[in-house]
Amino acid sequence: MSDSGPQKPRTDVVLAIDIGGTKFAAGLVTARGELIDRTRVEVEKNALPEAHFDSLTGIVRQLMTRAREQHHARIRAVGVGSAGPIARNVESVSPVNIPAWREFPLRARLDDLTGHAVYGDLDAKALALAEGWLGAAQGHPNFCAMTVSTGVGGGIVLDGELLDGMTGNAGHIGHVIVEPNGRRCGCGAQGCLEAEASGLAIEAITGRPPTEPTYEIMQRTGTLVGRAAASVCNSLDLSLVVVGGSVALGFAATFFHAAQVSLDEHCKLTYSRGARITPSRLADSGPLIGAGAVGWRGLRRARRGL
Amino acid sequence: MSDSGPQKPRTDVVLAIDIGGTKFAAGLVTARGELIDRTRVEVEKNALPEAHFDSLTGIVRQLMTRAREQHHARIRAVGVGSAGPIARNVESVSPVNIPAWREFPLRARLDDLTGHAVYGDLDAKALALAEGWLGAAQGHPNFCAMTVSTGVGGGIVLDGELLDGMTGNAGHIGHVIVEPNGRRCGCGAQGCLEAEASGLAIEAITGRPPTEPTYEIMQRTGTLVGRAAASVCNSLDLSLVVVGGSVALGFAATFFHAAQVSLDEHCKLTYSRGARITPSRLADSGPLIGAGAVGWRGLRRARRGL
Repeated sequence: MSDSGPQKPRTDVVLAIDIGGTKFAAGLVTARGELIDRTRVEVEKNALPEAHFDSLTGIVRQLMTRAREQHHARIRAVGVGSAGPIARNVESVSPVNIPAWREFPLRARLDDLTGHAVYGDLDAKALALAEGWLGAAQGHPNFCAMTVSTGVGGGIVLDGELLDGMTGNAGHIGHVIVEPNGRRCGCGAQGCLEAEASGLAIEAITGRPPTEPTYEIMQRTGTLVGRAAASVCNSLDLSLVVVGGSVALGFAATFFHAAQVSLDEHCKLTYSRGARITPSRLADSGPLIGAGAVGWRGLRRARRGL
Repeated sequence: MSDSGPQKPRTDVVLAIDIGGTKFAAGLVTARGELIDRTRVEVEKNALPEAHFDSLTGIVRQLMTRAREQHHARIRAVGVGSAGPIARNVESVSPVNIPAWREFPLRARLDDLTGHAVYGDLDAKALALAEGWLGAAQGHPNFCAMTVSTGVGGGIVLDGELLDGMTGNAGHIGHVIVEPNGRRCGCGAQGCLEAEASGLAIEAITGRPPTEPTYEIMQRTGTLVGRAAASVCNSLDLSLVVVGGSVALGFAATFFHAAQVSLDEHCKLTYSRGARITPSRLADSGPLIGAGAVGWRGLRRARRGL
């Protein structure tokens, strides 16, 4: 394969992959976080495991070709953000909404497919990295990022590092207890934030999809998210919470105003007073930039021998 | 000063100091966590700032002499665990129950007094280090340690490191929201764990000191502590919570049983299911061993150039 432009230095990129419940997306993310190309494919509901991997292979090969031929870019690694649960570093993935993939060995398969090192993490944690890199938490070494959509997920950055925890699930704040006598959650517990504020919960509570909310439900959802955020800010010494996800962003100012009022009411410690809750700024580029961030972080860690 | 035993190698120790609300304590802690000597002095309620430091000076000098003359030990550093609030590394301390010390420059004063490097942290975080080193969390890289006594404090260890947070207050789980419509907390918020489960709260709620509890209050306190612990386990991917402090340990099995039931009810995720809440094992040596741990950690970090 001849190099058509030897004078021009190649751009280094991470091949970013977002494994969602309804679609797979792939993109090219530079070391500065620019998403220079992207493509996606819908997930077919009832496909077999290999058929899912075939459609992923399609968009990955497309972008590998475009990286080389159109962008004169060199792929340095593959970065993955995946819907959970996952085993650490996407060694295996079992996305709730892709029933055919149960402990699917994604890392090894992508390694075989691309010939590059593969680094992966949960989608919500990838998004937290993206928010800290280029989004609403840019330059902040301490913050929590949340996604309020069909479910509720999140990631927490402390002292500049995304928290992992014992099995890599730290930051999953959908299961902070916000209503001690509240609804039964999908996880089996009672009163979790996810059981009260997720898109699925809202539909169950109101009988309407979260795209057709009443004023009261937008306000209540904000209040509960603010309450969970306050528990996190008080116990982890944070004062910034970034919230994305279709439900939160769809409920817009009504949601964010109620969340801020609730946060103000519950954050009264010297270090948590004045904590802010603010919308994600990355819109629909967030997941791919996040996957790119996971890839670049993996390369840095590999260089440091971690 | 002649060395009386040149053949015998000297033991390296940290001079550990515990700044509590009612007493100052000092001890000698070896690199293996042995507390080989200790002494203490009551804090006089209405003393002036310098009088407090004079009584601290008394016990510090005592132990420096005993280290040299009785234990043939070499002091490598000073480690401090202090009641909060503090500025990072005890640069200054303002312990709630020592009104004469407001932003008292403890680090510099102890440095002048001892000639050694001084490393300090909050008492509850120091206790968490001690529990991980030699107590009920020994060998666990991920756990939360809590103190339920006059107030409620704590420390969180993730991936083997004690969390600091933006201002050094991470782990302060007394202000996790457990009763949304609960009592007003000393911090100004409503429904904090500390407003429902601390010794002061129990006295205000029941009209009796926490040393004379009813069965119901022991059980209720355990339930609320378990609820807060569940929020922490679910959101930080932990499955071990160590609880000390006079209220929790005084309420004994009734408290711990209720706390475990509550934790079981709220921890249902794959990674949090089976989380355990267990009593501290260090009894009254905990604070000094913790202060020693802070000192040894400081030395390790200094060696690594952090």
